[in-house]
Amino acid sequence: MIIVLKKEADDAVARELLGQIEDFGLQPLHMPGVERTVLGALGDERILQKLHLQNHPMVESVRPVLSKYKLVSRELQPQDSHVQIGPVTIGGKGFTVIAGPCAVESFEQMLETAQKVKAEGAVMLRGGAFKPRTSPYSFQGLGLEGLEILKAVSRETGMPTVSELIDAKDLEAMVEHVSALQIGARNMQNFAMLKAVGETGHPVVLKRGMSATVEELLLAAEYIVSTGNANVVICERGIRTFETATRNTLDLNAVAFIKERSHLPVLVDPSHGTGIRSLVAPMAKAAVACGADGVMVEVHRDPAAALSDAAQSLAPEDFHALMAGLAPFVTAAGRNDLARAAR
Amino acid sequence: MIIVLKKEADDAVARELLGQIEDFGLQPLHMPGVERTVLGALGDERILQKLHLQNHPMVESVRPVLSKYKLVSRELQPQDSHVQIGPVTIGGKGFTVIAGPCAVESFEQMLETAQKVKAEGAVMLRGGAFKPRTSPYSFQGLGLEGLEILKAVSRETGMPTVSELIDAKDLEAMVEHVSALQIGARNMQNFAMLKAVGETGHPVVLKRGMSATVEELLLAAEYIVSTGNANVVICERGIRTFETATRNTLDLNAVAFIKERSHLPVLVDPSHGTGIRSLVAPMAKAAVACGADGVMVEVHRDPAAALSDAAQSLAPEDFHALMAGLAPFVTAAGRNDLARAAR
Amino acid sequence: MIIVLKKEADDAVARELLGQIEDFGLQPLHMPGVERTVLGALGDERILQKLHLQNHPMVESVRPVLSKYKLVSRELQPQDSHVQIGPVTIGGKGFTVIAGPCAVESFEQMLETAQKVKAEGAVMLRGGAFKPRTSPYSFQGLGLEGLEILKAVSRETGMPTVSELIDAKDLEAMVEHVSALQIGARNMQNFAMLKAVGETGHPVVLKRGMSATVEELLLAAEYIVSTGNANVVICERGIRTFETATRNTLDLNAVAFIKERSHLPVLVDPSHGTGIRSLVAPMAKAAVACGADGVMVEVHRDPAAALSDAAQSLAPEDFHALMAGLAPFVTAAGRNDLARAAR
Amino acid sequence: MIIVLKKEADDAVARELLGQIEDFGLQPLHMPGVERTVLGALGDERILQKLHLQNHPMVESVRPVLSKYKLVSRELQPQDSHVQIGPVTIGGKGFTVIAGPCAVESFEQMLETAQKVKAEGAVMLRGGAFKPRTSPYSFQGLGLEGLEILKAVSRETGMPTVSELIDAKDLEAMVEHVSALQIGARNMQNFAMLKAVGETGHPVVLKRGMSATVEELLLAAEYIVSTGNANVVICERGIRTFETATRNTLDLNAVAFIKERSHLPVLVDPSHGTGIRSLVAPMAKAAVACGADGVMVEVHRDPAAALSDAAQSLAPEDFHALMAGLAPFVTAAGRNDLARAAR
Repeated sequence: MIIVLKKEADDAVARELLGQIEDFGLQPLHMPGVERTVLGALGDERILQKLHLQNHPMVESVRPVLSKYKLVSRELQPQDSHVQIGPVTIGGKGFTVIAGPCAVESFEQMLETAQKVKAEGAVMLRGGAFKPRTSPYSFQGLGLEGLEILKAVSRETGMPTVSELIDAKDLEAMVEHVSALQIGARNMQNFAMLKAVGETGHPVVLKRGMSATVEELLLAAEYIVSTGNANVVICERGIRTFETATRNTLDLNAVAFIKERSHLPVLVDPSHGTGIRSLVAPMAKAAVACGADGVMVEVHRDPAAALSDAAQSLAPEDFHALMAGLAPFVTAAGRNDLARAAR
Repeated sequence: MIIVLKKEADDAVARELLGQIEDFGLQPLHMPGVERTVLGALGDERILQKLHLQNHPMVESVRPVLSKYKLVSRELQPQDSHVQIGPVTIGGKGFTVIAGPCAVESFEQMLETAQKVKAEGAVMLRGGAFKPRTSPYSFQGLGLEGLEILKAVSRETGMPTVSELIDAKDLEAMVEHVSALQIGARNMQNFAMLKAVGETGHPVVLKRGMSATVEELLLAAEYIVSTGNANVVICERGIRTFETATRNTLDLNAVAFIKERSHLPVLVDPSHGTGIRSLVAPMAKAAVACGADGVMVEVHRDPAAALSDAAQSLAPEDFHALMAGLAPFVTAAGRNDLARAAR
Repeated sequence: MIIVLKKEADDAVARELLGQIEDFGLQPLHMPGVERTVLGALGDERILQKLHLQNHPMVESVRPVLSKYKLVSRELQPQDSHVQIGPVTIGGKGFTVIAGPCAVESFEQMLETAQKVKAEGAVMLRGGAFKPRTSPYSFQGLGLEGLEILKAVSRETGMPTVSELIDAKDLEAMVEHVSALQIGARNMQNFAMLKAVGETGHPVVLKRGMSATVEELLLAAEYIVSTGNANVVICERGIRTFETATRNTLDLNAVAFIKERSHLPVLVDPSHGTGIRSLVAPMAKAAVACGADGVMVEVHRDPAAALSDAAQSLAPEDFHALMAGLAPFVTAAGRNDLARAAR
Repeated sequence: MIIVLKKEADDAVARELLGQIEDFGLQPLHMPGVERTVLGALGDERILQKLHLQNHPMVESVRPVLSKYKLVSRELQPQDSHVQIGPVTIGGKGFTVIAGPCAVESFEQMLETAQKVKAEGAVMLRGGAFKPRTSPYSFQGLGLEGLEILKAVSRETGMPTVSELIDAKDLEAMVEHVSALQIGARNMQNFAMLKAVGETGHPVVLKRGMSATVEELLLAAEYIVSTGNANVVICERGIRTFETATRNTLDLNAVAFIKERSHLPVLVDPSHGTGIRSLVAPMAKAAVACGADGVMVEVHRDPAAALSDAAQSLAPEDFHALMAGLAPFVTAAGRNDLARAAR
């Protein structure tokens, strides 16, 4: 339930109402805004009706939240959220390009890649230290050593980093070494992990599960935000359909739909979303066109030698072409230009 | 099999080789180009190998066609096809906007809609006279009367028209009244219909089936082209997946993929592709960004009163906004501007 | 709308009410039963309400049909339909086994296969004369010659036949040569074809489209039945999903669901439903267990030499094993034993 | 790689070869059988070829493992695995019926349900103490109190229990209180959890992910088995497709396919697989018919009052009917009768 206070309502009114909400066993939310204060009450809405909050002289309106997701919905917060990851803001006027290899392989590989993608306008570095692999016999990542490499390269280049968490026991080390935690597609409904990352307060990039509906994706985000951590960025990375020409089916409908319903920033991962190198650039352009706030792209200094995801990784020269081709679409979308983002 | 002739090869050489191909029971293809002539031979490639064409003094190279689709592939024809529908060229430098209601309801409705969308830059009119409806109890279209309305409105406005064929027995009437025949998603693998439209030589807009793979879609196009009718335009209109937030999942990966593998022009239908009015504009932008040659959009003068597809139809003012929003992306894609297309 | 008459209502009452229904522009249905007569009225139910039929002294109850499909629903007809195809009844106490090759290849091939499958308990013969093929370059069937072979083999063995219609222009020849018309998955929503087969009155085996929902499948059946042809048998043949280990995903949920909601008989095609020879027998057993009225199985005298669907065709000895394995499950399901069906 | 030793090979030979395998950095496996000993070597098969094991005088044959999954494949172990959970053996001659509510709600509820399902022939009890819920605002289970209830009811009734693990930090408590750990669909590719449950050595019921392919499912099982814990039971519970008539699409193809390729026991969950009470019984019958080793069914003493999954839970009288209906199919499948299993 959303309670909009009158302009003249002061802080004491807000505290009084929040107390009442809590007394009824519901979760109170305080959202002070520039113009007026909005309160939220989460829980059984039938109980809330007994409070008759609409009769309070300082309450302007009371309305139910219609979607199953509440905290992440535009019903609760109409304006876009901005998520700060180190020096980078995702969700604002800029269009954020995150790049890097699938997996951290060595310090030299990461540093070289980071410098090259930074020179082209990427502002954040991606790379997996722990890799979720379908087969137990595939390369599983460098682990803690990978995290240390990410931290060192971040220090060297000034780029914040994002890396995937695959085991909650690594959470402390992850928070210490990387700027944002990625929840991968396979763990999107690992609710224990969602709560755990929520409690760290660290920024989270939440990838859509392979067969997760948009509603389930937003409810997964709600799990994190409901712990009090609002620094959540959604990432569309393709869904699993009958089509096998591409690795996944990138669902840009979902991007436009989520931007309409939720205030959270939305990224697109055209590398996993297509699985084919030559399709990464056109789909990155489509991403900015349909309203995404950024893209996350796999770039490897030598794709042929990559230990994983070789077919979808861009070489540095491919990434250069992608950024050049992307620029006019970023401008068409009314976003700050990429070069400015990179400064 | 593709046979590239040497620069100095003259027409007599081509005729000689085509005769040999035919003698072996294969289908010969003659593709004279500016620089050099390319020949094709369709059929069992094991037979072709017995011809030893690579030994002919005027043959530069012989190579197999690797994809299952041959005539529609870029292996056979690297440069983009242009399909001419009345005064409109699809597949060239321009970006083609086709608009109109789901169903033809009356002359006044069609004329008013046509004039409004034309004023905004649409160059072609869509509207169903025969409607494929899931239930036998739903509105089935005006039939022949609808075709006559389309023809009259086309004469009045100068806009060519496209309308769906749902029964081969209507083919003659359709060819007489509309500029292009649409094969709907439900008939994409109605092979008898594909051959029948092919034989008319009339332009065809071939929509992707709800669960058709890209390969099946291109093979359906191949059915039409193999009858000798090269005027085929592909249309991506969303596929059926587990996601129910949107009516279909618009597969823009497929657009980028087909543009890479086939020379045929590709349209996108963001109306059926999303089923939600507010998502039509962002997905139209994404379509031009990923390389589509045009969009086909449902516009109704009064969506609330539409006899079908009300939820996804744009009102004239929505269409105005869509065209204004689309223009910078058309420019970013290096296409001719929409206004010029409309002249 | 369904109108149940009182026990004492005679034929004159039924005629009177049917006349009223017709006068309102609706489609009347007369379903005289053993105990009492049931009338149906198809069309806009708001109009029907104006009739106030519930006030008629001879009317016991009036209730709307809630599902979108009406004629095929158990709301309209609670008891199972029996569809007669030559000497074979589908939908009754027996479990019907239909067998034969994917495509008719020669008279000898069909006759030998027919004799072998008949000896094992199959009561009906399948075989395609016209083949819907994804590629225009694949074997397209023997055509009319194939139909003549089917007719000759049917005369020789006494087995009725079923074969797929792929072009409405072949309808007359099909009706003359085969006992039942198959609508294939690709034409399930070819509404013109559905109406055309309906009007012949010939028995129809309607296969589920690859991505057709159960509701769409039942509405496709409704198209046929609404022309007045009630001889419709549904066939589940697998749907298209992300899974590639099997050719399709056989949806036996749909069989149990349809048997609950519709009175039409339901067959299962485990050959197309799995695409893998060794899985045909276990899935045939599962079909009888979940309530199907029969199975349709591909059998070829020499699968390795089959011109199509080789991987899923059973050799005669595989079919022998299938029938032996199936028998106890047919008994467990309380069906007449297969040997009796074969007599 | 699989190394089959000659009949006369003794234990010393096996130890010698296992040592060589280990020296090359590969994982050795020792599988002594009644007739002869089989060794396995996991890892890069190119390295293995250098060992030239086929030249050893006591080696009968050496062959590569062709599937990506090795330990769980029939290539490695042709005969069925039996998994012992308390007094219950899954995977042998019997057909195992597991029943119980979706969630543990109270001691009385669990005890009453357990006694009722036991009386009908169920041999194992299911019930969630920790519930994975799509929304953070849904009932999340009783937690530790739920585990204690499960343990108490198990002691009272003698039935072993299975319950879902949703957070690795609960693992110790789970192992102490329940007989088998369930990995739910949402965590099937939570590789950290797979390894963790593997290391406990406790029996595991591994449910298929909503969009997991059969290969991914078997590789997830491989993760567990590769830690040295062979007590893994696979559970098919329906996949996510376009069909919405049923909650999921129960993929019985997968059951038949897995039984052919893997030696692990396979259960079917027709409750989640259909989501509709009336379809549970027909699909349970289909499960035994296609080769499943058991079913897991949701039963609640009062489904209308269930805190979760009400629509798919059977009342005790429904369960009675299910067991009565299932019995002849269990017999038809050549399995021990259910009553005997219950003794």
